[in-house]
Amino acid sequence: MVNQRLEDLREVMRREHLAAFIFPSTDPHQGEYIPDHWKGREFISGFNGSAGTAVVTLNSAALWTDSRYFIAAEEQLKGTEFQLMKLKIEGTPTIPQWLHSQLSTFNFQPSTEVALDGWCSSANSVKELMADLRKEGGLTLRTNLDPLKLIWRDRPTIPENPVEIFPIEYAGETTGSKIARIRKALREKHADGMLMSSLDDIAWTLNLRGTDVHCNPVFVSYLLISSKDVTLYINKVKLTPEVSAYLQAEGIKVDDYENVVKGLKDYFEYNILLDPDEVNYALYKTVSREIVEEESPVKRMKTVKNPTEIAGFRSAMLKDGIAMVKFLKWLDEAYKSYKSDEPHESNKSHESYEPNKPHRPYETEISIDRKLTALRSEQPLYRDISFDTIAGYGAHAAIVHYEATPETDIPLEPHGLLLLDSGAQYLDGTTDITRTIALGPLTDEEKKIYTLVLKGHIQIELCKFPSGASGTQIDILARNAMWREGLNYLHGTGHGVGTYLNVHEGPHQFRMEWKPAPLVEGMTITDEPGIYLAGRCGARIENTLLIVPYKETEFGRFLGFESLTLCPVDKRPIIRELMTQEEIDWLNQYHQTVFDRLSPHLDADEQKWLREACASL
Amino acid sequence: MVNQRLEDLREVMRREHLAAFIFPSTDPHQGEYIPDHWKGREFISGFNGSAGTAVVTLNSAALWTDSRYFIAAEEQLKGTEFQLMKLKIEGTPTIPQWLHSQLSTFNFQPSTEVALDGWCSSANSVKELMADLRKEGGLTLRTNLDPLKLIWRDRPTIPENPVEIFPIEYAGETTGSKIARIRKALREKHADGMLMSSLDDIAWTLNLRGTDVHCNPVFVSYLLISSKDVTLYINKVKLTPEVSAYLQAEGIKVDDYENVVKGLKDYFEYNILLDPDEVNYALYKTVSREIVEEESPVKRMKTVKNPTEIAGFRSAMLKDGIAMVKFLKWLDEAYKSYKSDEPHESNKSHESYEPNKPHRPYETEISIDRKLTALRSEQPLYRDISFDTIAGYGAHAAIVHYEATPETDIPLEPHGLLLLDSGAQYLDGTTDITRTIALGPLTDEEKKIYTLVLKGHIQIELCKFPSGASGTQIDILARNAMWREGLNYLHGTGHGVGTYLNVHEGPHQFRMEWKPAPLVEGMTITDEPGIYLAGRCGARIENTLLIVPYKETEFGRFLGFESLTLCPVDKRPIIRELMTQEEIDWLNQYHQTVFDRLSPHLDADEQKWLREACASL
Repeated sequence: MVNQRLEDLREVMRREHLAAFIFPSTDPHQGEYIPDHWKGREFISGFNGSAGTAVVTLNSAALWTDSRYFIAAEEQLKGTEFQLMKLKIEGTPTIPQWLHSQLSTFNFQPSTEVALDGWCSSANSVKELMADLRKEGGLTLRTNLDPLKLIWRDRPTIPENPVEIFPIEYAGETTGSKIARIRKALREKHADGMLMSSLDDIAWTLNLRGTDVHCNPVFVSYLLISSKDVTLYINKVKLTPEVSAYLQAEGIKVDDYENVVKGLKDYFEYNILLDPDEVNYALYKTVSREIVEEESPVKRMKTVKNPTEIAGFRSAMLKDGIAMVKFLKWLDEAYKSYKSDEPHESNKSHESYEPNKPHRPYETEISIDRKLTALRSEQPLYRDISFDTIAGYGAHAAIVHYEATPETDIPLEPHGLLLLDSGAQYLDGTTDITRTIALGPLTDEEKKIYTLVLKGHIQIELCKFPSGASGTQIDILARNAMWREGLNYLHGTGHGVGTYLNVHEGPHQFRMEWKPAPLVEGMTITDEPGIYLAGRCGARIENTLLIVPYKETEFGRFLGFESLTLCPVDKRPIIRELMTQEEIDWLNQYHQTVFDRLSPHLDADEQKWLREACASL
Repeated sequence: MVNQRLEDLREVMRREHLAAFIFPSTDPHQGEYIPDHWKGREFISGFNGSAGTAVVTLNSAALWTDSRYFIAAEEQLKGTEFQLMKLKIEGTPTIPQWLHSQLSTFNFQPSTEVALDGWCSSANSVKELMADLRKEGGLTLRTNLDPLKLIWRDRPTIPENPVEIFPIEYAGETTGSKIARIRKALREKHADGMLMSSLDDIAWTLNLRGTDVHCNPVFVSYLLISSKDVTLYINKVKLTPEVSAYLQAEGIKVDDYENVVKGLKDYFEYNILLDPDEVNYALYKTVSREIVEEESPVKRMKTVKNPTEIAGFRSAMLKDGIAMVKFLKWLDEAYKSYKSDEPHESNKSHESYEPNKPHRPYETEISIDRKLTALRSEQPLYRDISFDTIAGYGAHAAIVHYEATPETDIPLEPHGLLLLDSGAQYLDGTTDITRTIALGPLTDEEKKIYTLVLKGHIQIELCKFPSGASGTQIDILARNAMWREGLNYLHGTGHGVGTYLNVHEGPHQFRMEWKPAPLVEGMTITDEPGIYLAGRCGARIENTLLIVPYKETEFGRFLGFESLTLCPVDKRPIIRELMTQEEIDWLNQYHQTVFDRLSPHLDADEQKWLREACASL
């Protein structure tokens, strides 16, 4: 099927005199999850990972992806022309390098054109690609062609789901107030207006939500703000009479989604702010006024939660904690019988599972995900999960972005560590929590990585810092103890979390790489160090934190963190001697808070379980 | 005098139709210390601090400097036309903003020209200034005029001191080998050659040293490397027959200092690498070939010490430690009598000093500096101090860059903290050490800041990290404990140190600001956290560290630090309960090493003193 699609594509390429076509994994709105309509890279290559770029020439094809997807990509590309290009592995060429070598061998003309659809890449990424292609033998890039329009016959339409109002009792600030603040920020950057294309920025600004994107409660649209008007470009079938009335009352004009091009062409003011990492290249090139290229001011505004949003987070976290406790108690009891009946040798190989041996079937990675989601969905204002659950048992816990499928699903045996990273969308807030759970006896290695991860987690929780410090500075506190053991993890330590919005919210992060966005009061940020030993085990412990005031001194304002997440941390894997007294004190204090907050909402049995789970170490 | 100079300058400005002239504090080689010949900003304004910019219009004048120099500048500008502009203070205009407002009031023409001498600013800083001036009302910048040639009658000449060979037994690598490595690095950046103008880079490359600059053993020159030739542009009177012969043997051509312009004009290859933060604007504009604008590869090469250099550092540190121990013992004994005779109330105000009361005169900030320098100069291969000693007692210790002058010098009383930051140039290595010393009873505040600084210092010493981590990531370890108390310091935590070269060597640093230069094995870096309580007291503790291998695991190569500095840390101010066991263990271990290494070189009395100073806490 993939090979037929390649033939169709090459037919178009020959007609258009194109030497190569590039399919990135992005869409016109630079989203993390994208609607099926824009999954062109998956259509052409068959590879369905969240990150990857397919490149097709007239006689070759290759797909670049990162280490998370090497195994899956290998599998999915089997039988196709596509060669797998492993990113960040020694010897892997860049796309321009590969294109240069491919096109040199077959009657290469310096003027030969490469193409990609300018709608589906940010202005900055296209400009960088153009510069790199020019350096590699003077290749040029064409951006005004979408071959999928011609060759993707059953292409899914752009979602037409209805939009709904996000009530002010959860948003805490009116759209009018937000737009006034945005206009003020634009004036400070000497800009008359801006184009917004990030779907969560638009949803935040307008206090609207949708269901167009998996796990993200957003709706496909653009928003153009000038000094006088605000215009929402959206397929009007998505607007209920209620939403239309709301928009009219707020003074927001509405136009068809496709008319954003006309809107930009007709934009008559002196200049316009476009965030070149957000706005796609096609729209960027449409603008004829002066462009102020800056980070969109909405990004940082949105990350600072107002008191109503913070109250909503607390409410959502309470419900999520209740669901988590019910789940953990259920799991504990399901595995208790094995613990008493069959003492398990801690160093026994994981290969020892024999499906016929136990009294009753074990739970699996998928079955516990179902159970947890069912418990969450019983909570008030539950809407959806906030991302695909990562439930990884044993060696699967070492695969950072593991998502169990019927093919990979394995039973949870009564020993070893289960890594469970999950979250929900409640109308009053978004949650994101990871717990690593001992299902029975553990190896020394499992206990050690668990304890080092917990130490790292707690050191972030304990940190106090001057207002405006960056996440890059603070990140090492999560790694300091494990680095002394020669251990590390290659993902970031934390990210912002939206208010009934995307679970990943920037631009601030805890990260080894440079993230200049300053940390300020009112931001949410996760704290999720991990250690992953390939083929053996993995551990990650994550709370979502709120940045709160700490103290003011002659050296300025200092901030700290408050754990919003309310759920016990498994104490069974902890090697007590590796913990400092300060770390033990934090854990005991945290568990006290968890018990105090959750127990009034639990029945007697659940309270009993929680009391034990929260007992002092 | 300053006002007469301003009149002379304005005479030139009127003749040249200039609206303003800008005098930065830099020289053609972008040095930290600069020869008197280029101290134009001091000449025109009378202000002699190391950082500051003077700007003169036809009817006003202003000087920008940072908080280190507010008091000194206020004093030195008294009676002149110059208005003090305090950098980083709310409401202070930038130079372009101020110029715009000044020039607007007096028949301002949009074409009015501002000028600075393009020889005395880096290409990047001039380009930034041009862009900023253009934004502020379209001012243009002229760069080809040095009015000092006309108005500075007794201007010091460019130094003509002789150059000397830096022997291979200390350099550890021949000039030929270094140039081969530089050429290889240039090829990797697709460059055919480069112009070097940083004096320490030239000294390192050629294995030569000089005495043209205060504390920095460098000589004024340029070095032009092409794929075939290497040419040193230098005043030939500086070359002894021995050095001339050496250069000839190494295949280095020699030309007059001024001929660097002709050398660049005659440079015939395709392109040339210029580091725009290093090369001055005048030379940058001379080049007619394609310019590869990149960080000079020499900077990072120079920071990674070879085994000979490391052996030299160890030898220099041993000698420096011996001098420091002799000094500390002498100081201790000088103040011992006061301790026994006159018990001092720990909370008594520092105002209590009465010069006539003590049995004998106290030492002063300047007298102890003389003593320490005398002890260092007795050590083999001693050449010079490596920077001006910072000896700050009591409230003076809170002035980060304090340098005692006869006017500010105060007696050291038998209580409180003395901050002593000093270093030396030995032929085999450069040293940089800070100790904070209790001269008698301390307040609780003094003990607390001392202990927090020591904790920060030790946490850096203990850190292990993946090869290639940046100093920005690690910096927080020095601040974590003090941040919890709402304390901080606003300088960096550490910098590289040269091999009988500049005491400040980049581009790697420990710093809150982003420093992307990766930390790798063989680099030197200081570890010098501090706390400064304005008007009360200050503490800083500094060792120079070497980056050494730690372990290799499935997560890659990990590195750690080894203290090169050998000198006890004063234990008397430590609040033991604030220290973790790990920190106490490090200190005891360090003191054991200091004792083992130094004691064989000391007499019995000194050994006795050192044994006590190094006894376990």
